[in-house]
Amino acid sequence: MDLKALIRDIPDFPKPGILFRDITTLLRDRDGLRYTIDFLAQKCIDLDFQPDYVVGMESRGFIFGAPLAYKLEAGFVPVRKKGKLPAAVHQVEYELEYGTDMLEMHQDALHVGSRVLIVDDLIATGGTASATAQLLEKIGCELVGFGFIIELEDLQGRKNLPDVPIISLVQY
Amino acid sequence: MDLKALIRDIPDFPKPGILFRDITTLLRDRDGLRYTIDFLAQKCIDLDFQPDYVVGMESRGFIFGAPLAYKLEAGFVPVRKKGKLPAAVHQVEYELEYGTDMLEMHQDALHVGSRVLIVDDLIATGGTASATAQLLEKIGCELVGFGFIIELEDLQGRKNLPDVPIISLVQY
Repeated sequence: MDLKALIRDIPDFPKPGILFRDITTLLRDRDGLRYTIDFLAQKCIDLDFQPDYVVGMESRGFIFGAPLAYKLEAGFVPVRKKGKLPAAVHQVEYELEYGTDMLEMHQDALHVGSRVLIVDDLIATGGTASATAQLLEKIGCELVGFGFIIELEDLQGRKNLPDVPIISLVQY
Repeated sequence: MDLKALIRDIPDFPKPGILFRDITTLLRDRDGLRYTIDFLAQKCIDLDFQPDYVVGMESRGFIFGAPLAYKLEAGFVPVRKKGKLPAAVHQVEYELEYGTDMLEMHQDALHVGSRVLIVDDLIATGGTASATAQLLEKIGCELVGFGFIIELEDLQGRKNLPDVPIISLVQY
């Protein structure tokens, strides 16, 4: 299936000069959604990830991470923005274009040695994915790999990630 | 499976006097996640919903809505907070405890006559679910039902929703 044909380009969003890759047109297509999750799951199986947990980042990472966890029979763990998770959290700061922001994960969500797959809709510079990997490191989890729907290759986000297998389904 | 045993109670979150029902402990449990989605899907099948689309609200609605759409072989449509969706949107205002906020859905996400199921993690007063139903009404969709994991019965949110079947898996 041609996933690129289901992803919509929106010029000048969220600000002038940015070409936004809109995955809502893929999600609303029942065959596209099914194919995307099955394709990502098959790649995880081929790479023998066998994750105990899929970690997804707020909030588009939830949309792909949760069905993938379901399909792979893993648990799902959300990484959220500051102040959203109710119990004790680990925090990590990450860089935005201007300034920094904070990501949080429950301290008791994962354990030493848990096999974890990090999933998000898109990798650009790799800032949030790298920050999430740091959260796993604090706990002592085993990061088995990353899964993205879209990879913006020009931004070379892979270079900022730990040395584990990285899956992306569509490249620009 | 006893889903209540997997839902954690957090007193005084997000503020003093509120008992927060934390579903992250359910999500991280692989069997709990699987059972929750399968149970919700089976109820949708029993009620003959046959949705073309599952609509989920940002952001915990994404975590349950996307796997349910996958399982039911429907498309998934996100309803988001103001300014997050990149293309032309329909908007609806809804009441918060103090003041109001805005929900948005892409104008071209759904069509006249689309069969739509609205999914969220929890129904309290029914404010966001009711606002989302109003978005569907603007387009002329057929709302087939609502699906929630948790229902806070004391708040009688059902009374604020349109007269269609309402599923909840766990009641407090």
